[in-house]
Amino acid sequence: MFVKFEELKSVIKKALLNAGLSEEQAEICSEVHAQSSRDGVESHGLNRVPRFIDYVNKGWVDLNSEMELVNARGFMEHYDGGLGIGIVNAKKASKRAVELAKEHGLGLVTLSNTTHWMRGGTYAWDTVEDGFIGINWTNTESSMPVWGSKKPTIGNNPICIAVPYKDRPFVLDMAISQYSYGKLEVTRLAGKELPYPGGFDKDGNLTSVPGDIEESLRILPIGYWKGSGFAIALDLMASILSKGRTAADMDREGKGSCTGCSQVFIAIDPYVFSTKEETEKIAEGLINQVKNAERIDPNKEITYPGEGVLARRKKALTEGVHVDDSVWEEVKKL
Amino acid sequence: MFVKFEELKSVIKKALLNAGLSEEQAEICSEVHAQSSRDGVESHGLNRVPRFIDYVNKGWVDLNSEMELVNARGFMEHYDGGLGIGIVNAKKASKRAVELAKEHGLGLVTLSNTTHWMRGGTYAWDTVEDGFIGINWTNTESSMPVWGSKKPTIGNNPICIAVPYKDRPFVLDMAISQYSYGKLEVTRLAGKELPYPGGFDKDGNLTSVPGDIEESLRILPIGYWKGSGFAIALDLMASILSKGRTAADMDREGKGSCTGCSQVFIAIDPYVFSTKEETEKIAEGLINQVKNAERIDPNKEITYPGEGVLARRKKALTEGVHVDDSVWEEVKKL
Repeated sequence: MFVKFEELKSVIKKALLNAGLSEEQAEICSEVHAQSSRDGVESHGLNRVPRFIDYVNKGWVDLNSEMELVNARGFMEHYDGGLGIGIVNAKKASKRAVELAKEHGLGLVTLSNTTHWMRGGTYAWDTVEDGFIGINWTNTESSMPVWGSKKPTIGNNPICIAVPYKDRPFVLDMAISQYSYGKLEVTRLAGKELPYPGGFDKDGNLTSVPGDIEESLRILPIGYWKGSGFAIALDLMASILSKGRTAADMDREGKGSCTGCSQVFIAIDPYVFSTKEETEKIAEGLINQVKNAERIDPNKEITYPGEGVLARRKKALTEGVHVDDSVWEEVKKL
Repeated sequence: MFVKFEELKSVIKKALLNAGLSEEQAEICSEVHAQSSRDGVESHGLNRVPRFIDYVNKGWVDLNSEMELVNARGFMEHYDGGLGIGIVNAKKASKRAVELAKEHGLGLVTLSNTTHWMRGGTYAWDTVEDGFIGINWTNTESSMPVWGSKKPTIGNNPICIAVPYKDRPFVLDMAISQYSYGKLEVTRLAGKELPYPGGFDKDGNLTSVPGDIEESLRILPIGYWKGSGFAIALDLMASILSKGRTAADMDREGKGSCTGCSQVFIAIDPYVFSTKEETEKIAEGLINQVKNAERIDPNKEITYPGEGVLARRKKALTEGVHVDDSVWEEVKKL
């Protein structure tokens, strides 16, 4: 069904207040969850609220914790998230990176000991709407096999990159796994196959059948061995620069998805070496080439990352935000 | 055949001196080309020397040009490469990023109007051997179709990430295309198929047959639409931050591979927020989990990016560097 954005936010906020969040915490989190559903990222929007509250109830997320500055060196700062609310921590950290970038041209904030930030794109959108290039990533517990193994050993470590461009910024929000387990489930339930191979079956054959991948747990990194290496790179940098947990550390603790993870937030002034006009002209040349490329399907517009989000957002604000009926009923009762 | 490293370097150096490079330029470039062949990256080692000299003869690389500082802001600097020798420029830029990182904790150098840097890993290895985390990337002329098109519209924009770890650093060196055209050619000539799909044939079917991809020019980005978006992100950031050319600009000029490209070099002090011992312990936990993962093939060790390079390097320094017989004869005559 479809519900109005404000109603969606209000229902989520009530559930979060009931779970013990403060007015301020519930306001921030309900807005971010509702925005994720609004932008079409349902997996980390309304759908994720019950699991978040479950983590709060289990004590895996500490509602009384505030992130604290551990160390600073000019434009680089390291915070301890105190296992507080992932969204609240990540919001503060990305905001701080922008403040540092305003002063220095670039700001780098690392965050250790934090919890699930939900939709990674949230912080890239925030940064780009503040007028800055944003690069942020998180590590996760193991969810993909390292190349050469068949057991989950590395995280799918989502990375987001945002670059200002007129009123329709470029915003890439991608995990390093080809598909999420959520996407596998949805595709299986619809009785469909994945558009492209998404992992290996238990016999080690590349497959597009979601159930076979869910059984083997051998989900595919983007670019096979390349994504495997890239995921390790992101984990190494996040954990080292934040003196925080790696996937291996989170696996050992076994407190669900991203509990205790390490994150990096970078903001860069796009006009540090050029004017706004020069910068826009450079981006326009590239964007135009992409947008005007010969289409495979003449009726299907070529979009760059971020464009689809804006279109979905506009539609949802007019026609209502799509929510899963059963999840909607579940959250209303929380 | 196999030749000694010093002999390889000396033959390349002679060819470069004959092409008009100065003693210093030829020394730097012959070392980098020989190192690439030594480390198993033959495509950008000896094999690339004839094309480089061809570009010099065509005037696409200006031997008399020196890169110049255009603008600086603390730990961030922008240089104009003056269409000089790509290797020489990139060596200087990555070195400068390390100097800035020594002083500020992080250094970011952008380089516009430069030429092909050959093997991107060169600069990541340099940075990590200096004890710093290195992130560097370049844009390229169009070589892959943007997702939704069948014509080359975006670059394969290689990115390299290096993280210090004991005497065997992590060094990822990857292009955003799943396979290079060089790899397609080598595989086709050997009468083989690619291990995994590498592109589309002219009818739009995913294929592992190299000749069919060479015919369609529809090479695959890593992770399909994800790599397509990531490649655009790298191009946008490199061209904007260096006020330089995008893929679209290079396509218009049509002066071969990477002539006039834009590059970014970042060096970060890995110990900015922790001691060497703490950092090493964090990395060790992750690396051990990766290395000790259950193997698909019990006889095949699981390696992380960089390990294979070190093994090939050691072997080549003992047993000689592999060179293609015909290329070897060709370069000896240059």
